[in-house]
Amino acid sequence: MLDIQDMAKQVLAGNRRALARAITLVESGRADHREQALELLETLRGHGRTALRVGLSGTPGVGKSTFIEAFGLMLTAQGLRVAVLAVDPSSARSGGSILGDKTRMERLSRDKMAFIRPSPSQTQLGGVARRTREAIDLCEAAGFDVILIETVGVGQSETMVSEMSDLFLLLLAPAGGDELQGVKRGIMEMADILLVNKADGDLKLTAMRTCADYSGALRLLRKRPQDPQDFPKALTVSAVEQNGLDTAWAEMTTLNNWRRENGHFKARRAAQARHWFEAEVRERLLARLAVDPVRSVMKDLGSKVENGALTPSAAAEALLCEHLSLD
Amino acid sequence: MLDIQDMAKQVLAGNRRALARAITLVESGRADHREQALELLETLRGHGRTALRVGLSGTPGVGKSTFIEAFGLMLTAQGLRVAVLAVDPSSARSGGSILGDKTRMERLSRDKMAFIRPSPSQTQLGGVARRTREAIDLCEAAGFDVILIETVGVGQSETMVSEMSDLFLLLLAPAGGDELQGVKRGIMEMADILLVNKADGDLKLTAMRTCADYSGALRLLRKRPQDPQDFPKALTVSAVEQNGLDTAWAEMTTLNNWRRENGHFKARRAAQARHWFEAEVRERLLARLAVDPVRSVMKDLGSKVENGALTPSAAAEALLCEHLSLD
Repeated sequence: MLDIQDMAKQVLAGNRRALARAITLVESGRADHREQALELLETLRGHGRTALRVGLSGTPGVGKSTFIEAFGLMLTAQGLRVAVLAVDPSSARSGGSILGDKTRMERLSRDKMAFIRPSPSQTQLGGVARRTREAIDLCEAAGFDVILIETVGVGQSETMVSEMSDLFLLLLAPAGGDELQGVKRGIMEMADILLVNKADGDLKLTAMRTCADYSGALRLLRKRPQDPQDFPKALTVSAVEQNGLDTAWAEMTTLNNWRRENGHFKARRAAQARHWFEAEVRERLLARLAVDPVRSVMKDLGSKVENGALTPSAAAEALLCEHLSLD
Repeated sequence: MLDIQDMAKQVLAGNRRALARAITLVESGRADHREQALELLETLRGHGRTALRVGLSGTPGVGKSTFIEAFGLMLTAQGLRVAVLAVDPSSARSGGSILGDKTRMERLSRDKMAFIRPSPSQTQLGGVARRTREAIDLCEAAGFDVILIETVGVGQSETMVSEMSDLFLLLLAPAGGDELQGVKRGIMEMADILLVNKADGDLKLTAMRTCADYSGALRLLRKRPQDPQDFPKALTVSAVEQNGLDTAWAEMTTLNNWRRENGHFKARRAAQARHWFEAEVRERLLARLAVDPVRSVMKDLGSKVENGALTPSAAAEALLCEHLSLD
């Protein structure tokens, strides 16, 4: 039997094993675990700690792991505690977690100031969202200063991660001017800082040109109220040579401080909390359709609709009135 | 008080005014109207008539109205009865119907063998889907031979229209080879026949080249089981000069006959019916969140979540257990 009050205490004390166990608890699909998870989150509510939640996206091959390792080690060297969470929609599909998140970031994973957690395995992006969001809450309660939430460049998961982050970074590869179009406008509009990676060796000049191109593209975007002068902006970095990481962190800090002073930080967190509440209600309401007896009745009615014995509307009416009516 | 049995009889007799009133009834949001609409659809079920449902999409300016008018008049001259329904997502947003559908197709609208109905005005695409689907059923019951369902080139509405059509046509403009990429792969994969319009005057050669380019692009797509040899295919038409319309119709007939003979027509309709049943269940289940008292409770809980008095998960749990539990 889990002692939830004790687990909460240990999470608050920054115990990494307790944090890992707590995340496993919120990731569980079992009903009794779910009840304990809610008790844990409720116990931890109001802990008063605020981490900087940083979403990070980039297509495979752009150097995300190398960047996170180098960036994370720079932060821990400054005395900051860093948590890394991964959201991988392909892992959501296959039901497995990213192989070797810790292997990818070997030095960071051995750092006592860091905590790395692979993507929760889940069949639905909605489920991944709730679990990731709750894992963020737990890391924040455990006193981490920076929480990096990493995802691959797939539209839906990027939107999801940006909606649980205070800052959203887009990691890009050096590229010819024509390829700029490859970054969807919607993704560009979500980003606070674009980082053109691999600004080293043969690619350095290309990276600088790419960065200038993106800066131009960013200037064409509509000004957002949550941005100070000169934001969003594009920067070059080299994760391999550890160049530009300090500048990137300085810019992130500048942006975050400005937003905190101007009320945008708090407003964004509030709006995000409401958004996730509503999303969870919708998701769990629809999940009832997948549970018997509704699931079986829906399947039978579907067959009748298929062979023309019922119209889609009449079948929907029947299911909603007879099997999904509220008390 | 509406006499539904009488309305059903008149719709079956092909009375256009009764059909128009019946469509107005299924478009209504009033609960008593909804009940009557379901009674009407149930009374009409099993009428045994089968129209050819043809979805048609194309970006503004490609000549959709001119094509529909010319194509429709050609069909009515052959003794076929033609219904035209429009789905306009922008009208769904603004709450108004397309201005002057009948003005756009003046000659066809005066044709006794034709019936033109503008887009239902609705705030949600889901609502538009149900109303359009039911309007199609009514037109089919009224004995129309061909039902054209027109939409503009916006991803979501195209998918929706293709999911209520037996055939899906994409009307395209003549263009340089580079612009082919403008047609999204997903849309291309939905289409059964691509029609390159404006194959007349100065644009004739360009249209032929564009058609050849699209033919090449179509050959690269994966073969679908519901297609005979040589389909999907690209053709040139000139709506203005009424060229190629007969060929287009012949190809549509060939494809449709092949699908009917090979069981694909019936299988597609059955799958579509199940799809729309399930979509309506989901949509109406979610619609309960917008109705009081749930709406108000959700708003209050949302405020508590915003100011941190509740976690999103705890608030969702409370709403679902206390206000959305099933009996």
